[in-house]
Amino acid sequence: MDETEIRRRVEASLVARLATVGPDGRPHIVPITFGLEGQILYFAVDFKPKRTTDLKRLRNIATNPAVSVLVDHYESDWGRLWWVRLDGTARIVKERGEVDRALNLVARRYEQYRTTRPAGPVVAVTIERMTGWSAAG
Amino acid sequence: MDETEIRRRVEASLVARLATVGPDGRPHIVPITFGLEGQILYFAVDFKPKRTTDLKRLRNIATNPAVSVLVDHYESDWGRLWWVRLDGTARIVKERGEVDRALNLVARRYEQYRTTRPAGPVVAVTIERMTGWSAAG
Repeated sequence: MDETEIRRRVEASLVARLATVGPDGRPHIVPITFGLEGQILYFAVDFKPKRTTDLKRLRNIATNPAVSVLVDHYESDWGRLWWVRLDGTARIVKERGEVDRALNLVARRYEQYRTTRPAGPVVAVTIERMTGWSAAG
Repeated sequence: MDETEIRRRVEASLVARLATVGPDGRPHIVPITFGLEGQILYFAVDFKPKRTTDLKRLRNIATNPAVSVLVDHYESDWGRLWWVRLDGTARIVKERGEVDRALNLVARRYEQYRTTRPAGPVVAVTIERMTGWSAAG
């Protein structure tokens, strides 16, 4: 699967799963909503944690910025299964202009974010590798 | 969400996502089909790798057995979102009797496995923690 096709499938998906690694070396997964802009995937935390280090996924990123993001399709016809994975490095976005661009990006994709902007930090994942697999070959 | 409800949702789902951690400390995610039996989640590798260490998820488990498994539900009505996460320790199943029980378990859930048994190794995840979240509270 080439990069254009991987991007098309990521763009067409409204949910992905984010894996991070804790300081204890344990993996952690959560579902995320997101937006893709060039080589960066953005996601926002809906609610404001007391500190940006309060949420497990944010704590993990602070100590180990390596993340993996998966988008996949499941159905009972296994000839139609596919997944795409984006591996990269995450950072909490500090610069106001980039936060605004990221929030506009997710607001275009999710109506919920048009009425209520996510209150929490925005995370940028710089994509270093895209991998795709499709049962259809 | 209590453990009974978490189990019910896991049992009702046909796909989950497995996160492992590589020797380089990077997370890795793949979708899995699986079966749940008591405190153990089993999944099988469909094809036979040349060695059981050939596949990234198996290599990772060999050096770091900590894994995280996520089942989630997404829809445009965010009031109905939920996810459940099973954190545990993975091992490649060696004992023939346990391999057979695991393959019977997944064959009951997936018709594809009734006609063609997975050729690859079976992995057992001993669940140490179950976490659940539902937007409906």
